[in-house]
Amino acid sequence: MNSKVLALSGGIGGAKLALGLYHVLESGHLTVLANTGDDFEHFGLSISPDIDTLMYTLAEISNQDQGWGRANESWSFMETIIELGGEDWFNLGDKDLATNVLRTSRMRMGKSLGEITKEFCEKLGIHAEILPMSNEPVRTMVKTLEGDVPFQQYFVRDQCSPIVTGFEFDGVDAAQPSHKVVNAIVHSEFDTIIICPSNPFISIDPILSIAGYKEALIKSETPVVGISPIIGSDSVKGPTAKIMRELGMLVSSLSVAKHYKEILDGFIVDTQDDLTAEDAGIPVYKTNIMMDTFEKKETLARETMEFSGQLA
Amino acid sequence: MNSKVLALSGGIGGAKLALGLYHVLESGHLTVLANTGDDFEHFGLSISPDIDTLMYTLAEISNQDQGWGRANESWSFMETIIELGGEDWFNLGDKDLATNVLRTSRMRMGKSLGEITKEFCEKLGIHAEILPMSNEPVRTMVKTLEGDVPFQQYFVRDQCSPIVTGFEFDGVDAAQPSHKVVNAIVHSEFDTIIICPSNPFISIDPILSIAGYKEALIKSETPVVGISPIIGSDSVKGPTAKIMRELGMLVSSLSVAKHYKEILDGFIVDTQDDLTAEDAGIPVYKTNIMMDTFEKKETLARETMEFSGQLA
Repeated sequence: MNSKVLALSGGIGGAKLALGLYHVLESGHLTVLANTGDDFEHFGLSISPDIDTLMYTLAEISNQDQGWGRANESWSFMETIIELGGEDWFNLGDKDLATNVLRTSRMRMGKSLGEITKEFCEKLGIHAEILPMSNEPVRTMVKTLEGDVPFQQYFVRDQCSPIVTGFEFDGVDAAQPSHKVVNAIVHSEFDTIIICPSNPFISIDPILSIAGYKEALIKSETPVVGISPIIGSDSVKGPTAKIMRELGMLVSSLSVAKHYKEILDGFIVDTQDDLTAEDAGIPVYKTNIMMDTFEKKETLARETMEFSGQLA
Repeated sequence: MNSKVLALSGGIGGAKLALGLYHVLESGHLTVLANTGDDFEHFGLSISPDIDTLMYTLAEISNQDQGWGRANESWSFMETIIELGGEDWFNLGDKDLATNVLRTSRMRMGKSLGEITKEFCEKLGIHAEILPMSNEPVRTMVKTLEGDVPFQQYFVRDQCSPIVTGFEFDGVDAAQPSHKVVNAIVHSEFDTIIICPSNPFISIDPILSIAGYKEALIKSETPVVGISPIIGSDSVKGPTAKIMRELGMLVSSLSVAKHYKEILDGFIVDTQDDLTAEDAGIPVYKTNIMMDTFEKKETLARETMEFSGQLA
């Protein structure tokens, strides 16, 4: 397909659709704007989980069973960290570590996260642009009944067990968006803008909270299409449904559509879903949104493009 | 043996004798004062090659074929660094990397190199004290006909090929010695002090250049015994002989004895050597100093202790 696409994405779920789009679109026509609210510093290393999941997925070197990290990974580093008494709640494979060590080293030399990601993508032979939502650090803090917890500690160390009352994105006020992307959105240079089926609160909201993106999406004449992260009354993966319940929301695609109401022009939900265009207030497209095979990723990508074409 | 021993050591050659001493002495009776002039920062990591060689050797997890790093090592990190376009002249195994990442992270948290090394030694079950010559950074600069080169670049990247005209130890004026060791030397708390068969210029001189150690060694009543790094007219390993030639010295144990003349009370050379006590100006003990088996390391350690006992 000849269309140019911007996809807003978090990690795993979003990366699945990004892979589908990457294969359906012409080389160089996909731009992925990646959440960096999950980024953190561990062992003094700058870790960007969503960017890396996107890179590894598009380069087809991701560990699909695990859902994060690289395939054919080795674990000598972590084994030795444990031997030496280091913290072991966050797993880093030996190959994955190279990405993080090199990124950290280049950041210390003054390169931006965007420049480094571009370089890594080139080296990995990825013909798509993966852009951090900002070069400045934004850190998702999870507000819970047990107090504020940095995202990775909530997500990995605490296995999402604390009850969530809200989120804060530390650093967001000082963070600049990608001005190139904001301009391209405003000037309708993309044919389609896609909100991937990522967690709305911790993957997409951090992106939308950076001054510039949301305003541009509202202003843009390009159709903005969302894909629901909810199938039936549960999330496909991850804590989306749990968080929705804890925030007092009904776990449904309708709740997600409402959450995105300012920016969406169309919404894709699963065939199981009873959401109507009337309830959503925007056109709704129903299909199988469970992307558990490569074919389903491609199919959903193709259908998303077709649906978007009808909205234009 | 009930003696308390201080050994000044660089990496490989010194570590061999240190292993012999470790097995010959009672638990907790060996202190190794390690050269940190080889330390450097690579990928933003604080790397201490001599300390790590000593730790890995005493813990019997060193790669003996390779002469550095750990046994049963994996190399996924370096493979990925190359894939991502990172510098590949300095090899870091996946396990070795854990030591360096954890050390760097703990240094950033304000721990000293000495504290971190102590902690690592405990975790690795080493019942000897390995102390950095200083907690402050000292960096060996190699003065060559091609200009000044940081040590690891000279040693690893350039494979010791530039012609050496001298050495400088950057940071040495600000570096504090281990005051505990200086006091123990001055108050003759060790029964023997050993200058390991390390490179005199790049392994031992950095230690002696830190204000305190040399003065204490001269003052001490404890016998100071050196082991020659030269067998016949060549160095056992590494660039010692090449450097001696380039500095205009005769490659011989006599040259080494002269180099250490202020501090040595006795000198151990190979049976092949024709050095006499008269030439050396101090008692000379001849034995097989090639430590190519574990037994030879133990034997040389035992002989060193006996020779030292005769000097006391």
